Amino acid sequence: MILLKNVFLNGNVCDILIDGNKIAKIADKLSTVTDEIVDCSDKAILPSFCNTHTHASMMFLRGIGEDKNLFDWLKQDIFPREAKLKPEHIYPLSRYAILEMIKTGTTCFTDMYFYVPETLRAVQNMGIRAVLPYLGMDFFDDKKTESSIQQAIQHLKEPSRNLKIKKAICCHSVYTCSQRLIQEFSNLAKKYDAYLQIHVSETQKEVDDCVQKYGCRPVELLYKWGFMGPKTFFAHAVHLNDDEIELVKKTGTVLGHCPTSNLKLGSGQMPLQKYLNAGLKVTLGTDGVSSNNSLSMISEMKVAALSAKNKADSVLAATVDDAFRMATQNGFEAFGINAGEIKEGNLADFILVDMNNQFLLPNNNLKSNMIYAADSSCITDVFCDGIPVMRDRKIPHEAEIISDFKQVCSDLS
Amino acid sequence: MILLKNVFLNGNVCDILIDGNKIAKIADKLSTVTDEIVDCSDKAILPSFCNTHTHASMMFLRGIGEDKNLFDWLKQDIFPREAKLKPEHIYPLSRYAILEMIKTGTTCFTDMYFYVPETLRAVQNMGIRAVLPYLGMDFFDDKKTESSIQQAIQHLKEPSRNLKIKKAICCHSVYTCSQRLIQEFSNLAKKYDAYLQIHVSETQKEVDDCVQKYGCRPVELLYKWGFMGPKTFFAHAVHLNDDEIELVKKTGTVLGHCPTSNLKLGSGQMPLQKYLNAGLKVTLGTDGVSSNNSLSMISEMKVAALSAKNKADSVLAATVDDAFRMATQNGFEAFGINAGEIKEGNLADFILVDMNNQFLLPNNNLKSNMIYAADSSCITDVFCDGIPVMRDRKIPHEAEIISDFKQVCSDLS
Repeated sequence: MILLKNVFLNGNVCDILIDGNKIAKIADKLSTVTDEIVDCSDKAILPSFCNTHTHASMMFLRGIGEDKNLFDWLKQDIFPREAKLKPEHIYPLSRYAILEMIKTGTTCFTDMYFYVPETLRAVQNMGIRAVLPYLGMDFFDDKKTESSIQQAIQHLKEPSRNLKIKKAICCHSVYTCSQRLIQEFSNLAKKYDAYLQIHVSETQKEVDDCVQKYGCRPVELLYKWGFMGPKTFFAHAVHLNDDEIELVKKTGTVLGHCPTSNLKLGSGQMPLQKYLNAGLKVTLGTDGVSSNNSLSMISEMKVAALSAKNKADSVLAATVDDAFRMATQNGFEAFGINAGEIKEGNLADFILVDMNNQFLLPNNNLKSNMIYAADSSCITDVFCDGIPVMRDRKIPHEAEIISDFKQVCSDLS
Repeated sequence: MILLKNVFLNGNVCDILIDGNKIAKIADKLSTVTDEIVDCSDKAILPSFCNTHTHASMMFLRGIGEDKNLFDWLKQDIFPREAKLKPEHIYPLSRYAILEMIKTGTTCFTDMYFYVPETLRAVQNMGIRAVLPYLGMDFFDDKKTESSIQQAIQHLKEPSRNLKIKKAICCHSVYTCSQRLIQEFSNLAKKYDAYLQIHVSETQKEVDDCVQKYGCRPVELLYKWGFMGPKTFFAHAVHLNDDEIELVKKTGTVLGHCPTSNLKLGSGQMPLQKYLNAGLKVTLGTDGVSSNNSLSMISEMKVAALSAKNKADSVLAATVDDAFRMATQNGFEAFGINAGEIKEGNLADFILVDMNNQFLLPNNNLKSNMIYAADSSCITDVFCDGIPVMRDRKIPHEAEIISDFKQVCSDLS
């Protein structure tokens, strides 16, 4: 048991008891006998962030091929480098990504990449949570379809050894995956009660191509193919028409907004406020560093709010509460994780922030300060599942993680 | 003299000699006898930032009245608080603002607020540079016009005691200032060879109102009234038509882009790439924290680049070099300050960044990392005019500056 003494919570100072992996008790004063008492004077507690869309192992591609058209960028910069990637690179790359996530207050992320067992090892080592889907992408090649399906089944059958890691499977997109792959993955997800993911309507071109090929828009297609539901996650979803919004709502499908990536790649601005008004479940993700180029959910909240206000042409769009909820509660809820709010009974996933940090003063509105002013320097401690993963800004083995990462980057350059 | 040993500059490791307030020499190896040798292993040197538009003393308003319409926000939140503001509040408020600027790598800013002598004291105390205009705003009241003109003259006549502070005068806007005030300020600026500033075309409403009242758009009006020229600075300039772009170019007038503030207040997106293509001089500013809510130029570069790519619907817009130059070189140049690039003969305004900081790896593109990934935690040292204003992340009297600021916030709440 850990007792947090004198911590700011929603404007008041209180004590918080962490028992096992839960927030057990919150009260003005607690004098429980505990293993450890943490003096939190001048610190505030906030829920940690859930980054619902990223590609952790792409860390080595940060800053590569800036300001190029998609095709040139992929062909000249990304593909030649990714071709060198081997399974043994994934562990140090993912660990480095998780280092950055923890420094910026994230304790859960959803990944989409190859060599999942290696990413899983990194997640376990760093002590945070993740949703780690097997990624299917057959390029309409029957042989690849079958092998993807077999590998997905194998992935789903593998017994879970870590409760902090959620089983999932994922199709890359409607423009890289066949009907059979998408439908079979839908069936498998239902059979194994697993989460399903896909990139959807990231660009107008994707929508136009889909209409030309299939006679309907991506969301309509995925609805027909049985892919949608409350355990299905659509990354991006920038370009949805009213009928598609209705399908997302009806099925309880979750959206993963990646505003920085969308702006940086010129994919467009999600009409966030329109989706929120329609009652859609919207979460927030950074996407990979090759198109962001950071894994900071603090920066992502700011860009999300600014972009939404601009798109809606209204300062009333994407309020402080909306932006903060998307980055915390909505993300955890989407993957059935009882976190994202500081309340009794919830999982003890939280951050402590320094209330004397220059960005958090004056304390007129802590959430607004976190969204619009804060950066990683505000965060002193990060807990996941009741266990500290960062203490006084220090993460175990940080020097080793950085040195291993540099070595891999040098190997892949 | 200070010798920086083994510092990364444009991808190479070198030594840099600072002599007085200048970058005196850059070479592979230097073995000059100096007052101090700074070991810069694993650090890179970059120019510091120039924030060309802010209202430093508004720090106490950070996070106040979020997500409200302009009118409600001003009436309910801002005006009642600003009404309590006295000259003695300005020094601690400005000092706090400068603390945040230094932490985020800024060594020069342009302010626009009341009680200039108090801000000037704060700038001198903190050791950075500033352009501090007297702010005229007469609300079309003849008495105020005359007193503003008298005060502007007095401000311009005051002898400069600090070479790091530039003389300037400023009209608030065409919707708060009379023709006589604007024309008289234009004449005074010419007479005293001072910089001139004004908020221009921040919102479409401002443009529409101007057309209705004067029969022409704001930039056309200011041109007619003799306000434009290479020493004139237009803050915001979101809504310019092609004729106005031509006037800005012809006169060499400088623009101050404040993308975060424009997005947050729903004012629109500056067509930055269009302006750059037209050859306009564009600098970058944060605006005040009441509409940003940060003074970080790092965050501002990211928002500027993302917003420009979105507005232009092209990833080729606002390149890494464009964004970085706007935040550094262009800003200093606009106010005749020989800084913003690390080269021999330039003023020694620079920052040192930690190349092992998680956001700056891999080092594929340092400027891109600074724009898209970095935050204040990357910056270890800040020099202005050859003198360190932050050393190993420490700024002199930081605790006192924070405590004085908290006291003022409490007085004004």
